[in-house]
Amino acid sequence: MEYFTEANSVAAVDERMGPHVEPRLRTVMSSLVKHLHAFAKDVELRQEEWELAVDFLTRTGKISGDERQEFILLSDTLGLSMLVDAIGNRRPAGATENTVLGPFHVAGAPVRQMGDSINLDGKGESCLFNGRVVDIHGAPVEGAKIDVWSDSAEGYYSVQQPDIQDKWNNRGIFVTGADGAYEFVGIKPVSYPIPDDGPVGQMLAALGRHPNRPAHMHYIVTAPGFQKIVTHTFVGDDPWIASDAVFGVKTSLVAPFDPVKDGRTQWHSPFDFVLTPL
Amino acid sequence: MEYFTEANSVAAVDERMGPHVEPRLRTVMSSLVKHLHAFAKDVELRQEEWELAVDFLTRTGKISGDERQEFILLSDTLGLSMLVDAIGNRRPAGATENTVLGPFHVAGAPVRQMGDSINLDGKGESCLFNGRVVDIHGAPVEGAKIDVWSDSAEGYYSVQQPDIQDKWNNRGIFVTGADGAYEFVGIKPVSYPIPDDGPVGQMLAALGRHPNRPAHMHYIVTAPGFQKIVTHTFVGDDPWIASDAVFGVKTSLVAPFDPVKDGRTQWHSPFDFVLTPL
Repeated sequence: MEYFTEANSVAAVDERMGPHVEPRLRTVMSSLVKHLHAFAKDVELRQEEWELAVDFLTRTGKISGDERQEFILLSDTLGLSMLVDAIGNRRPAGATENTVLGPFHVAGAPVRQMGDSINLDGKGESCLFNGRVVDIHGAPVEGAKIDVWSDSAEGYYSVQQPDIQDKWNNRGIFVTGADGAYEFVGIKPVSYPIPDDGPVGQMLAALGRHPNRPAHMHYIVTAPGFQKIVTHTFVGDDPWIASDAVFGVKTSLVAPFDPVKDGRTQWHSPFDFVLTPL
Repeated sequence: MEYFTEANSVAAVDERMGPHVEPRLRTVMSSLVKHLHAFAKDVELRQEEWELAVDFLTRTGKISGDERQEFILLSDTLGLSMLVDAIGNRRPAGATENTVLGPFHVAGAPVRQMGDSINLDGKGESCLFNGRVVDIHGAPVEGAKIDVWSDSAEGYYSVQQPDIQDKWNNRGIFVTGADGAYEFVGIKPVSYPIPDDGPVGQMLAALGRHPNRPAHMHYIVTAPGFQKIVTHTFVGDDPWIASDAVFGVKTSLVAPFDPVKDGRTQWHSPFDFVLTPL
């Protein structure tokens, strides 16, 4: 019988699992313990650092609730959210890539007519968004549902300001016809900081990192027979485009935002969604 | 400019740190991100597993407070607490080894006279504890302070039952004289489960693990010029000795518990504490 030692620590914990553990759980927990111990050994983690970590994680749990999920912020800012998203959504070249969902999606947005505006408060720089939903061969996808949401001109999502914004301000769902085309009016989104008055904000400050996200539109695009796309389009000349606090930017998701002079909108952002078959 | 990808994920997060980050923090966070991402890649962590982890960690934080620290339990049951303790307290052969402090130490226990009993409620099987505090050459250490605590006959520490037990039941401090000897009466400790009605208990159940700790005495031994020892002595024939839920057992810490017939106590547990110089 061998007791736990620094040298055998991983095996000691691993062997403690019972014979009837669900196989996937066994795999995940074995790997977690292996990497957790490797981390502690690599840095020779000190008792006072461990105490700091316990306190940090406790505060991260305490501040989390229905309105705010600090562990998701922690995962986002350490790149874990994007990594899990990337692993789970590998797609062929040319297909629209995923990025993080974020905490501000609201299910059940109103279905609007093509060309309608989603901007209900009249604030912000107006922008025409249009393009097509196509398959990887370029054929139009009929009946694709585009669920879009963005922040307001002040950088807040409607759910962050329930007393100020209409619940569906800068939100809507559009369904494509036979040509796969979509078109709606919204605003050119603006950059904003993730909530940084909690433990994650303290961590970012200690790491010399800012909490800002570059301006982006959110989309969920679904159609029968195709993988669900959860993604953003980004404003390429945003000052934070190269340093998104949550690592959400991908080259293929940077969309044009071109000034227009036709009087209907100030900006035009064309983007095609390329769906991957199931 | 390269954005975050599955392949470059570690470097993408690492490079985001600012130029003036405290060097030790930089080292720890770099390693943490490296191992966290390696874990996610090794198991191809799934979105729904990530969601389960966020929920688990949140509940672990929510249940923690002054009376209960579920993140410490989590660390304990994953072997991390013992690993950090081992890394921070490597000692020469023959020196008394450390083990986990546990959550039930109370500072400021009464200093008692050699030979006194720490068992105030008269419950349990009485046991004489004695031995010497020596240096690694066997020379007695004068003025060593032995802070001892144990659970009650029912398996609860006094602080877990503030309405039932005296605060200092089964607790006391003894100071050695010139001979380095110590002696006191307590009870033969009993095994008990760690709190298992929270997230950590759910994890243990899913892993086919029990929550029990083998019976043990707790000690903190300090003396000027020597490293502080935080340790236990264990009852060797305890049914949980080979499967301590927190991996605290070390071969060198299993102490004799011999039946005695002299009438003063039912058991005798001799143990010498061997101090390591600073």
